[in-house]
Amino acid sequence: MSDLIGSTARMVGGLKASRGLVSSSSRLVPEEVPIAFSYGGTTHAVMMATPDDLEDFAVGFSLAEGIIESAEDVLAIDPIEVGEGIDVQVTLKEMTAEALVARRRRMAGPVGCGLCGIESIEQASRPVRLVGAEGLRITAREIADAMVRLGAAQDLNCQTRAVHGAGFYIAGQGLVAIREDVGRHNALDKLVGAVVIGGWDPAQGAVVVTSRLSVEMVQKTAALGAPLLIAISAPTALAIRTAAQAGITLIGIARDEDFEIFTRPDRVAEGVALHV
Amino acid sequence: MSDLIGSTARMVGGLKASRGLVSSSSRLVPEEVPIAFSYGGTTHAVMMATPDDLEDFAVGFSLAEGIIESAEDVLAIDPIEVGEGIDVQVTLKEMTAEALVARRRRMAGPVGCGLCGIESIEQASRPVRLVGAEGLRITAREIADAMVRLGAAQDLNCQTRAVHGAGFYIAGQGLVAIREDVGRHNALDKLVGAVVIGGWDPAQGAVVVTSRLSVEMVQKTAALGAPLLIAISAPTALAIRTAAQAGITLIGIARDEDFEIFTRPDRVAEGVALHV
Repeated sequence: MSDLIGSTARMVGGLKASRGLVSSSSRLVPEEVPIAFSYGGTTHAVMMATPDDLEDFAVGFSLAEGIIESAEDVLAIDPIEVGEGIDVQVTLKEMTAEALVARRRRMAGPVGCGLCGIESIEQASRPVRLVGAEGLRITAREIADAMVRLGAAQDLNCQTRAVHGAGFYIAGQGLVAIREDVGRHNALDKLVGAVVIGGWDPAQGAVVVTSRLSVEMVQKTAALGAPLLIAISAPTALAIRTAAQAGITLIGIARDEDFEIFTRPDRVAEGVALHV
Repeated sequence: MSDLIGSTARMVGGLKASRGLVSSSSRLVPEEVPIAFSYGGTTHAVMMATPDDLEDFAVGFSLAEGIIESAEDVLAIDPIEVGEGIDVQVTLKEMTAEALVARRRRMAGPVGCGLCGIESIEQASRPVRLVGAEGLRITAREIADAMVRLGAAQDLNCQTRAVHGAGFYIAGQGLVAIREDVGRHNALDKLVGAVVIGGWDPAQGAVVVTSRLSVEMVQKTAALGAPLLIAISAPTALAIRTAAQAGITLIGIARDEDFEIFTRPDRVAEGVALHV
């Protein structure tokens, strides 16, 4: 019954063509299974994800979706295998559960699916909360250090070269948490859960990710309350606007010693001084 | 009113740190807006996407979701700007619309969101249909040619380095269609629409994508009815199992002249002969 839960990669056979020669080959590929989150027995969303770190995933997803305010709102998390997937049954504190039922009632009606369960265009572009941490600074050296550590800490990606990673970096302490998933949103949800369950102060560090920066990556970082979001790749226009609203310092194209700052450059220690 | 529709990229300013020196910089970043698909006035799903090729997107999404059987089931597609997003209003043929209403009634209940509007784990792992095209063959040279052409045809990615591409390759004719989007699923939905609207025979070509191969990429290729799916990056375990079910030849890690074949190698002309 527990074959799926916790499995992350599987060896598969195939054929490899290299310089015109074909030979049999094998490779580790990441697992991907439907993972549902159910609250009070009602399914809220189904994601295709890597089935590990399910507690972190449940807490991070619930926070990012605004279902809970803190990890303490969750009383229990029970992952159950259902057919080819996993139903993660989340038991909420009574008041939190009542708030979710009330919210569901408002959303009732003949609607289909939305952006992670929240219907309508308006809800997809919901306002983000302003993160604090006005005093926090990061140096160019720390940004480069965070990216190097993120690359080195991705165990599943080292095996499969096919999953995304999200880490939480605190200057002086390094990468205090790292989570991986076939989906970049899931990797960040898992990280958000790991940070709050681990008791790290979100305001004291930077979220670092291996992916591009779409708006949802910014929304999840804002839900966590982290003031810095750093990515290997580039942001979308909406991700930049949303980071500006949230007061998040958005850094992209962070490779080797180089990077680009799209919003709130004042948190980059050398940024302001050198900008002419 | 039509600022959003058709816009693909935006110039943004920022700071660039290179070798320790910070200077002001500018960069084209891709647009990303909430795009809803509504049928008969009822919203079915909202995706974050690049707001171009909306007709292709609507037809491809509707096909991949099983809402329509062919492009002829769609009578009209009207994209309307709504706040910060676009509501793509799709008018279906009467019988198709009735089937959708009946399907919605079956799905009614206190459920939230699912995988592209289809609730529950069972529906997320829904069986795919077997593609035909038993006689089709592709050579190693054609696979390499398809990938080179895909890279060269990605206009938006050349500008932004932040979007995915999906193309349809027919041996002897080259890349007959290419679509781009900030989301890889959206890029493939747009391509599926472009292929069926353009009247290409899906059974005669290969879908080529710049992304990793998650199960949904295979499901969409199966919905199109294309026998080959080729990607720059690696597949998940579920994508491989699903491609095997669908009878799709799944090829990954296709870079330069090299690639790996995960399912149905008989369609690769040199594959079977050289495999010992």
